[in-house]
Amino acid sequence: MKHIDISRPILDKNDRLAQSNKELMTEKGIFVLDLMASPGAGKTTTILATIEALKGRYNIAVIEGDIASNVDALKIKEAGVPAIQINTGGICHLESDMIRSALDQLPLDDLDFIIVENVGNLVCTTEFYLGEDAKVMILSIPEGDDKPLKYPGIFQTSKAVIVSKMDTLPVFDFDMDQFTETVRALNPQAPIFPLSAKTGEGFDTWIDWLVERIEASKAPE
Amino acid sequence: MKHIDISRPILDKNDRLAQSNKELMTEKGIFVLDLMASPGAGKTTTILATIEALKGRYNIAVIEGDIASNVDALKIKEAGVPAIQINTGGICHLESDMIRSALDQLPLDDLDFIIVENVGNLVCTTEFYLGEDAKVMILSIPEGDDKPLKYPGIFQTSKAVIVSKMDTLPVFDFDMDQFTETVRALNPQAPIFPLSAKTGEGFDTWIDWLVERIEASKAPE
Repeated sequence: MKHIDISRPILDKNDRLAQSNKELMTEKGIFVLDLMASPGAGKTTTILATIEALKGRYNIAVIEGDIASNVDALKIKEAGVPAIQINTGGICHLESDMIRSALDQLPLDDLDFIIVENVGNLVCTTEFYLGEDAKVMILSIPEGDDKPLKYPGIFQTSKAVIVSKMDTLPVFDFDMDQFTETVRALNPQAPIFPLSAKTGEGFDTWIDWLVERIEASKAPE
Repeated sequence: MKHIDISRPILDKNDRLAQSNKELMTEKGIFVLDLMASPGAGKTTTILATIEALKGRYNIAVIEGDIASNVDALKIKEAGVPAIQINTGGICHLESDMIRSALDQLPLDDLDFIIVENVGNLVCTTEFYLGEDAKVMILSIPEGDDKPLKYPGIFQTSKAVIVSKMDTLPVFDFDMDQFTETVRALNPQAPIFPLSAKTGEGFDTWIDWLVERIEASKAPE
């Protein structure tokens, strides 16, 4: 219980700045996605495939959150999209002030869509509102179908659940029906998108879901 | 920086109780392992295979840390070993007071070896001393060989690094030489144990490493 009491002032300050981020994004007509997952679940790979599908149509930027290193931002820049690397220096999640610093470095007037890649963590990332339109999570097949039971919070917070590395399903014991049922009990609304960046499976419906939201966020001309 | 200042009093209190846990374990001659990994990296599977290899020789118990659910503790109990489930209720790591409550429920006079399965998290788990003899981490092949760059802290804190799901190496792009080199730069001492619970690969050397430490921790007769 002490944990909750102590973190309260940080959360309040975080939420105020997140709200200001949200107002700025609404003014600029930018749809912002906060992508959360375990380390190695395929966040960067999913982002790269999403950029590939949308870059002819929208102007996209990526904000990369990591404890250390800039390997992910380099991969994104190679795809021809602006990327800002945030190194949290040990903090296990992104906060709204870090996002604001990154926004200040991006050409906001030209952008339609910003993807925030949060730190690899199924717990702490869910607790911080950054000013995004939607939090979306990725669970990869190798992580196992019991994860909604063990990390219910992230499944409840997410507006959509991506299941990545679908091409590896034959190699692992992952019961998709069981998984879907458990997710449904926690979050009846969120669509589940089974994807494989390797085969391209499932990207059409995921991209349709994004396009609908990017269009709805556009500022009136 | 604020994050560090605020967490300091918790860490101090945590460390004092951890030290008391350590003294109790030394008195009882029990070797305690704190096992850390991402969600789905194979902590419970590795623990089950380790129990299978050692249960004729030592008395073992497991302390299971999860945000929610008791699925892991049930699996351990099925293996015929005492298991205490801790539900952190949203906290992303175990702390020493939670371990103490679990120790109070275990038959300490009869035990040689306690395995603590920490919450699935590569960041926060590294920061809390629980009174263990060694923190050991697991990275699974599907997570990718770039993880030491992105989560250096856990690789530096670990006394040994297990690479799990070695049987899936042909399915993923994982450069073991590159990985080993990056780990070596962060932590020259820690042995790296490539394991597959499916094929049994690598368990001999991992078990030898454990036996040496369990024997060294035994209380004098």
